[in-house]
Formats: sequence, structure tokens, C-alpha cells
Amino acid sequence: MAELTVFAIEGIGEIEPGMDVAAAIGDAIAAGTRRLVDGDVLAVTHKIVSKAEGRVVDLADDGPDSHRYLVEQEAASVIRRRDQLVIAETRHGFVCANAGVDRSNAGVARAVLLPIDPDRSANRIRLRLAERFRVTLAVIVTDTFGRAWRRGLTDVAIGVAGMAPIDDLRGQTDDFGKELEVTEVATADEIAAAADLVIGKSSRNPAAVVRGVSWTPASTGVSPLIRPAGEDLFR
Amino acid sequence: MAELTVFAIEGIGEIEPGMDVAAAIGDAIAAGTRRLVDGDVLAVTHKIVSKAEGRVVDLADDGPDSHRYLVEQEAASVIRRRDQLVIAETRHGFVCANAGVDRSNAGVARAVLLPIDPDRSANRIRLRLAERFRVTLAVIVTDTFGRAWRRGLTDVAIGVAGMAPIDDLRGQTDDFGKELEVTEVATADEIAAAADLVIGKSSRNPAAVVRGVSWTPASTGVSPLIRPAGEDLFR
Repeated sequence: MAELTVFAIEGIGEIEPGMDVAAAIGDAIAAGTRRLVDGDVLAVTHKIVSKAEGRVVDLADDGPDSHRYLVEQEAASVIRRRDQLVIAETRHGFVCANAGVDRSNAGVARAVLLPIDPDRSANRIRLRLAERFRVTLAVIVTDTFGRAWRRGLTDVAIGVAGMAPIDDLRGQTDDFGKELEVTEVATADEIAAAADLVIGKSSRNPAAVVRGVSWTPASTGVSPLIRPAGEDLFR
Repeated sequence: MAELTVFAIEGIGEIEPGMDVAAAIGDAIAAGTRRLVDGDVLAVTHKIVSKAEGRVVDLADDGPDSHRYLVEQEAASVIRRRDQLVIAETRHGFVCANAGVDRSNAGVARAVLLPIDPDRSANRIRLRLAERFRVTLAVIVTDTFGRAWRRGLTDVAIGVAGMAPIDDLRGQTDDFGKELEVTEVATADEIAAAADLVIGKSSRNPAAVVRGVSWTPASTGVSPLIRPAGEDLFR
């Protein structure tokens, strides 16, 4: 029977700039009761990755001006602006609020930026944990994004290692033998969303294991999930 | 320990117009080995709900013209159009491709439309199963939507019964005592995405149980997830 389980990795503790995030996650796994198994997907909130990589900025103050300045700096282009809300494209190609600049769980007058290369960050964690625990796994670095036409936010993948982020069902047929219309499933984003249901928005459990998803090995990183500007009908 | 499990309900069988979808799901659960428990969320793909409710249309043929005509009929307004792709707002307020008209798993020269009132459909299933199995549960009716800036599709909630679709964390603080910036989590959409990871795109397992999510009882239906047009920066 198809069954998925998702559980948080507890005991990772606070991550500070310069720390080895793969070691911290690995130590928490080793100290816990649940082992990694082949086929697991590890979802890691980008915040601990960014912190470990020193992507933390001290702001002059906690006011909107300091924040806005940083957002402009992080944005490759601003897509829309309304009052305090800025929808921007990041240098990675992600379209999101505030160009990924986040002041929650950062500390007073500090902000956390997105990792420079989230795919590389994900892959480093993947290689280290695969070696340490002798398992085949995929790693997803996540962030929380809004959507154009739906309220509320969901977690999505911003870095992917080891797996294809999209499963392309083109050519597969439905139960009547007709080709499926829904052909590209954003598996990595659905995994990020499932992980968020146990991770939540505190920094206490910044990683979770998603077990039981069938995924396709690949080394494309997150790029298949990014819609090229030329294909985008909404900017 | 926070843990989520998701499993498909097997043995629902083909649903035809006029059938009782709550009875079909209930019979499959009763015949299976896993019982519902208090707090479960049942995710049901809209296709079996639509079929049971007779929201199936025979097309003149399987060509693009018949399909396009039907899409125009189902759309409250067309937001963007490029070649064969139509992004439309449905009468429910959802913005999605083809106004929710889907030809997969419908049969030759047939299309499945969205339920007229997916919240009502979800609530009917919820009441029937709650009574039959004497459990407190929430029900989500799902569909597969694209996103403006990301490739690939994910399942989202189009009908919600028994739970708040968004968890509003406003006023909650992070681990440094600062107010959280991400305040509105689209829990129902994350549950729909998690369910899709076990459901897949065949019609064989059109429903799944998501167990271990903490949700807030509510009777708002899906509407908190729909961004009002006046708030929408992208149409």
C-alpha cells in the first residue's frame, strides 16, 4: 500500500554562521531513535542553511527602511510593489515576496537571506549524510512562498539534490487509455509542503524526513521548477 | 514526536454519475484494514466528486474546438490566453488552467467539470463518514493547479469542510520573541499536496487519509484561500 510518513528531526539546535549544517543534522539523526533509510527525502528549511553559510545581515534597525533597502539589494528585478509588499525576482530566478529576505527567527535587527546557491547547499548535505549513514537519499532546501491567486503560503523547494524536482508523466495514459493532461507534477514542491506540515514556523524543528515518495534520481537541481520569464504570462 | 502519515484509500472503484461518493469511500474504508481515527483529514480528488454529481460532459469530439468551447462556458472570466492555454477564473473564484475542465480519466470525448459547490460536496462526505465511523474528521476536495512562476503542478484544496484552510499565526512569536513574518499558512493546500504524493494521477486511488496534522475546526469552507480580485496584483 502506498504510504507516506513525514517526521521532524529533533534536536538540531540553534545554527550559527560558520557551523557545519550537515554535521548538525547528522548528529541530531544519530542521537535520535529513527535512522535514515534508502529513498528518504530530507527537507531542510533554508534558514539554517543560510545561517550556517553566513547569509545573515545586521540591519541598522528593525524599521521598514532598512528592510526595504536590503530587499532592493537582493532583488534581480521588482515585479510588483504595493505598500510594504514587494514581489521580486531573486538572482536564482525565484519570484517571491521581499526577494526572500526574512526577519523571523533571525534575531533582533537581523535578516536572513537566501543561500547563494541552494542546489549546491542541498547537494553538500546530501553527500555528507549519504556517506555518514550509507543511504541513498535526496535533499530539498525549502522556503515559504506566497501565490498569485491564493491566499496563504506554502513551502516550496528552492534547492534540490539527488532527485528530479518534476515528474513528467507525458506519454502516460489514464485508465481509459487517453494521454494524461496533467503531465508535470512538481514533486519536490509537494514534498516541501508535506514537510512543512510537521516542521511549522518555529525554528525548533528545521528539518524533516519524508519517507515513501517514489522519486527519480537526477542532478538538475531546482531549475526545472523555475518558469523562464519568456514563458511567464504574469509579469 | 510530530509525525504525519498519508495513505491511499484503495478499492473505491469507478464512480459513475448518480453514485453516492460518500458511500463508495466509506465502503472502501470498511473493507480495508485501516480505520479512520479522530483528527484525520480525508483528501478526495474532485474528479470522483464531479462524476458522482453528474458534472461530466459529452463532447462532440476529442478535438481542441469542442474543448475550447466548454472552457469558455465554464470560465467566469479569461485572465490570460496563449495558444491552447487558457488561464481563467472559475465561478468559484479559482484561477486555473482551462477553468478546471479536464479530459483525463473522463473517457473518450468526455470532460469532467469542477463540482458546482465543492465545499458542500466536501461537507456532505464529512457528515456521512463522521456518522458512519463515529470520528471527528475534516474533508478536502482537491484539484491540480499550475502556478504563475513555477513549472509543474501541485494539488490544492478546492473544497474544504470541518477545518480552517488557513492557519493564521499572527501574533505568534519566533524563538527570539519577534513576531513571525510568515503568518498565514495554507494548511489545506499543503495537505492536498501531501495527499497527491500517494494518490498520483491515475484514477485508481482517488482519495487518501492524512493523519497527524493539527488543524483548527471551522466552517468557512475554501473561501479564505481565494485571493479577492481587488488584492490580486497579477490580473
